Amino acid sequence: MHEETTARLLIRCPDKPGIVAAVSGFLYNHGANINTLDEYTTDPDGGEFFMRLEFQTPHLDLSRSVLERSFNETVAERYEMDWRISYAAKKQRTALFVSKMDHALVELLWRWSRGKLPADIVMVISNHDRLRETVNGFGVPFHHVPVTPETKQEAEAEMTRLMGDDIDLMVLARYMQILTRPMVDKYRNRIINIHHSFLPAFVGANPYRRAHDRGVKLIGATAHYVTDNLDEGPIIEQDVLRVSHAHTVSELIEMGQNIERHVLARAVKWHLEDRTIVHGNKTIVFQK
Amino acid sequence: MHEETTARLLIRCPDKPGIVAAVSGFLYNHGANINTLDEYTTDPDGGEFFMRLEFQTPHLDLSRSVLERSFNETVAERYEMDWRISYAAKKQRTALFVSKMDHALVELLWRWSRGKLPADIVMVISNHDRLRETVNGFGVPFHHVPVTPETKQEAEAEMTRLMGDDIDLMVLARYMQILTRPMVDKYRNRIINIHHSFLPAFVGANPYRRAHDRGVKLIGATAHYVTDNLDEGPIIEQDVLRVSHAHTVSELIEMGQNIERHVLARAVKWHLEDRTIVHGNKTIVFQK
Amino acid sequence: MHEETTARLLIRCPDKPGIVAAVSGFLYNHGANINTLDEYTTDPDGGEFFMRLEFQTPHLDLSRSVLERSFNETVAERYEMDWRISYAAKKQRTALFVSKMDHALVELLWRWSRGKLPADIVMVISNHDRLRETVNGFGVPFHHVPVTPETKQEAEAEMTRLMGDDIDLMVLARYMQILTRPMVDKYRNRIINIHHSFLPAFVGANPYRRAHDRGVKLIGATAHYVTDNLDEGPIIEQDVLRVSHAHTVSELIEMGQNIERHVLARAVKWHLEDRTIVHGNKTIVFQK
Amino acid sequence: MHEETTARLLIRCPDKPGIVAAVSGFLYNHGANINTLDEYTTDPDGGEFFMRLEFQTPHLDLSRSVLERSFNETVAERYEMDWRISYAAKKQRTALFVSKMDHALVELLWRWSRGKLPADIVMVISNHDRLRETVNGFGVPFHHVPVTPETKQEAEAEMTRLMGDDIDLMVLARYMQILTRPMVDKYRNRIINIHHSFLPAFVGANPYRRAHDRGVKLIGATAHYVTDNLDEGPIIEQDVLRVSHAHTVSELIEMGQNIERHVLARAVKWHLEDRTIVHGNKTIVFQK
Repeated sequence: MHEETTARLLIRCPDKPGIVAAVSGFLYNHGANINTLDEYTTDPDGGEFFMRLEFQTPHLDLSRSVLERSFNETVAERYEMDWRISYAAKKQRTALFVSKMDHALVELLWRWSRGKLPADIVMVISNHDRLRETVNGFGVPFHHVPVTPETKQEAEAEMTRLMGDDIDLMVLARYMQILTRPMVDKYRNRIINIHHSFLPAFVGANPYRRAHDRGVKLIGATAHYVTDNLDEGPIIEQDVLRVSHAHTVSELIEMGQNIERHVLARAVKWHLEDRTIVHGNKTIVFQK
Repeated sequence: MHEETTARLLIRCPDKPGIVAAVSGFLYNHGANINTLDEYTTDPDGGEFFMRLEFQTPHLDLSRSVLERSFNETVAERYEMDWRISYAAKKQRTALFVSKMDHALVELLWRWSRGKLPADIVMVISNHDRLRETVNGFGVPFHHVPVTPETKQEAEAEMTRLMGDDIDLMVLARYMQILTRPMVDKYRNRIINIHHSFLPAFVGANPYRRAHDRGVKLIGATAHYVTDNLDEGPIIEQDVLRVSHAHTVSELIEMGQNIERHVLARAVKWHLEDRTIVHGNKTIVFQK
Repeated sequence: MHEETTARLLIRCPDKPGIVAAVSGFLYNHGANINTLDEYTTDPDGGEFFMRLEFQTPHLDLSRSVLERSFNETVAERYEMDWRISYAAKKQRTALFVSKMDHALVELLWRWSRGKLPADIVMVISNHDRLRETVNGFGVPFHHVPVTPETKQEAEAEMTRLMGDDIDLMVLARYMQILTRPMVDKYRNRIINIHHSFLPAFVGANPYRRAHDRGVKLIGATAHYVTDNLDEGPIIEQDVLRVSHAHTVSELIEMGQNIERHVLARAVKWHLEDRTIVHGNKTIVFQK
Repeated sequence: MHEETTARLLIRCPDKPGIVAAVSGFLYNHGANINTLDEYTTDPDGGEFFMRLEFQTPHLDLSRSVLERSFNETVAERYEMDWRISYAAKKQRTALFVSKMDHALVELLWRWSRGKLPADIVMVISNHDRLRETVNGFGVPFHHVPVTPETKQEAEAEMTRLMGDDIDLMVLARYMQILTRPMVDKYRNRIINIHHSFLPAFVGANPYRRAHDRGVKLIGATAHYVTDNLDEGPIIEQDVLRVSHAHTVSELIEMGQNIERHVLARAVKWHLEDRTIVHGNKTIVFQK
């Protein structure tokens, strides 16, 4: 597969007969070759239909813009599709947010520096000035924007100014601030957060202490899109590690951080590969 | 290891220097040979200490009752121990409770019939008459005790009568009734329940439907001792299975049941082998 | 989804542009509605292409045989497809084979009796007479066919006679006999076996004893199609459990059996749902 | 727990009655307070006995050397013990070895720099000059010692000179060279290696390619002590990740590296905390 010629088409529409035939027929007729096709329907009989196609465009008989316009007119409108095409060669411009703890941030930067996260990481923004050297070591600009309850709006305005108009993805890699509603709305389904998770849940302060006191046998992490409901957005990925009564609170925290690193990295990768479609409060994830 | 001569000593006391030396010295001086020793302290400096010893008694120079009395006088009182000795050859008399779903019950009965659950399963009690044949097929008596909101007290009285005075363990293998507080009190730390678990938790009705709508990536099960707080007692064991957006609600339920089977069986086995000690709302589990 | 109207189309052919469009267009034009579509290519540029479609046929404008003939003529021949259509309502006639250990057999029978294995289990064949009562308890005929090295051919002839001409699937649920090559050839890609697996592998006698002596931290199981190379056929499913140095050989065996139960049940279910396609010594598994 | 006063006693001897009483009595009588005690016997009746004690020494009425001599005379000789005491405050001097791939090395250095690996990492030695900057960024000296088949002996002599006489642990973090027998002998049970693992095993070249062609469903990693039998030494830790037929060889390699990072880090941590005892070709691991 050649990245330069790889495109992805994401579709969401009411399910009805003929969608796969219409889409694949369109691509075939215009010289595109499908590599992978994933689809999901909530109900074949009147439900919602989701599809992801990855295709090669070397012999494309049209320019991209003409292809997209043609697709819209001949297929998308007929099936009332919510759709978009992305091109693997055009990496998503990504801003990472962090507070003081570096574990999730370093995991992302390290994978990215090895070519394993197909993003264009353009900056790291932090409400503390602690990780500047680490970030710069990866060749990424670091911006310190202090945040207090009183200055949150100004701080977010400054962050928005720093990010400019063409940021595709924000990743909260242990950014311990709640974003304002306008910020969340502006980047809807384009902000990924990571947080610890337990069975049962421990909402509120000191969750690891309480998980320890309760003697849980599993600790986990959840990566999700940020919505107005804190920590309640559409889940992208989750995982757990086994623990015992003998682990101290600080050991649980360390183990929790190790899961957070991997869960967040997987979620971000799937987003960057256009494998996720948000549907209500749920994420369809077309993973391998 | 010979089951007939295997004994287990469970201890709980304030932590202070010398406990291990006192206990192991006592056993050695009376001809007992320690096979395994597990211990845990919440804090070596003034915390709570827990210990489980499994030892062989072939050359014991005392009868069991004299040994126990001697231990109490020379060791246990000095360290203010809460303790008990159990003998592997004396299997715990166990009653299983079930409603309509047989998955957890059959798993327990099947493991037991193969000699893998060291219990003396003396009866199955159900509020439905549906699983009589299945239970009898394992050679276990089945009692049908209908329960309605109005008759719950009488029903529990009947169950108590059926169980008699020497039931050591009650296992709720998908018994969909809440026990009354007197019943819970009577068998404190001797009733094990199994229920589904999710990250995050979905309290209330239709949890699998809601987990499906939320797009969780893991579904799990928790086995715990029953307390007055429904589904909130000390956790013994937990596990999860990976799921995807494509699994239907009924598939999630089936997968959840498969985890429940194994989580409950492990928890019951550990209880029967005296590997668990309840401490507040937490269970110390000395598993291998 | 209505089982009576559900059909599945499995395809394998050289990859070239237009396959998805051709197949989905054909189905659409004949009134079939696609529920799910999975595909995989070893290489979009001249590799091997695999596809599974599940579709509904309520409004089919053709009989099944006409549909199949038409598909062959208008699509399959053009793309040199190896293909077949199956119908969910026509369950696969399945024979289970077992020796003395019942764990894998009982798991399959129990899931099947609850409606969770979409098979038509028509008989159990064993080289021992030990599990007759268990099998009959599930309402399934049991046939005892003794096997010795000298009589293996006659024994297999008798088994073949018992199975008749319309057995779709043979499952070796801990059947401790090696099948002869003619038997394997006759049911190629239609015999599923389960065996223990370790990292590293312990080939030969007493694998659990050797895994114990080596101090492995994981024990596992592999379900695979049977080929002439013993235990080396195309893998369908694998899983592991964590163990420690403290587990005895007999505990490892018990844990291994618990994994075998689940790995085999999953593999058989996927086969029955037509989710598997063998390619060389590899199995493409289109699981959810 | 205060690291400065924490000591650990590791014991191995023929199992016989009275060991626990003798050891714990000795420690108690000399003012040491046991925090944790783990033990294991291959057979209570004449087998091999292993024990790890972690104890606090704040009120010790003896100097360390007197304590050790006294223990030897009054306890160890009587029970024919192979034993040693280590002190948590004296971190093990550790040398890391690497070739070109940085994943395992960076994971160790990152955990160590955050205080999560209780070692004194004194140098990194590599047969390539590729990771110097990365290593120096963590404040650790980097030594490039080229190795060719002809110069292996001289190269190892140079490495031995660099390490000096007081290296406690060598970690091969993807060091793609086989050590000579004298080197292995000199650091017996003090060299930890990491390598990929599969079920079944693929010995020889291109294991990931062959695992891909075989369609394995799990890929894993094993950390072990190095012996003369390449990749066959006593196992310390293992883990696996689930994969599918759709993962490419390079994706399998990446996933395998992610497991290697964690398996090696856990194994090294357990070694550094004196939780491992080698017994024949097996490692007793007293993990929490």
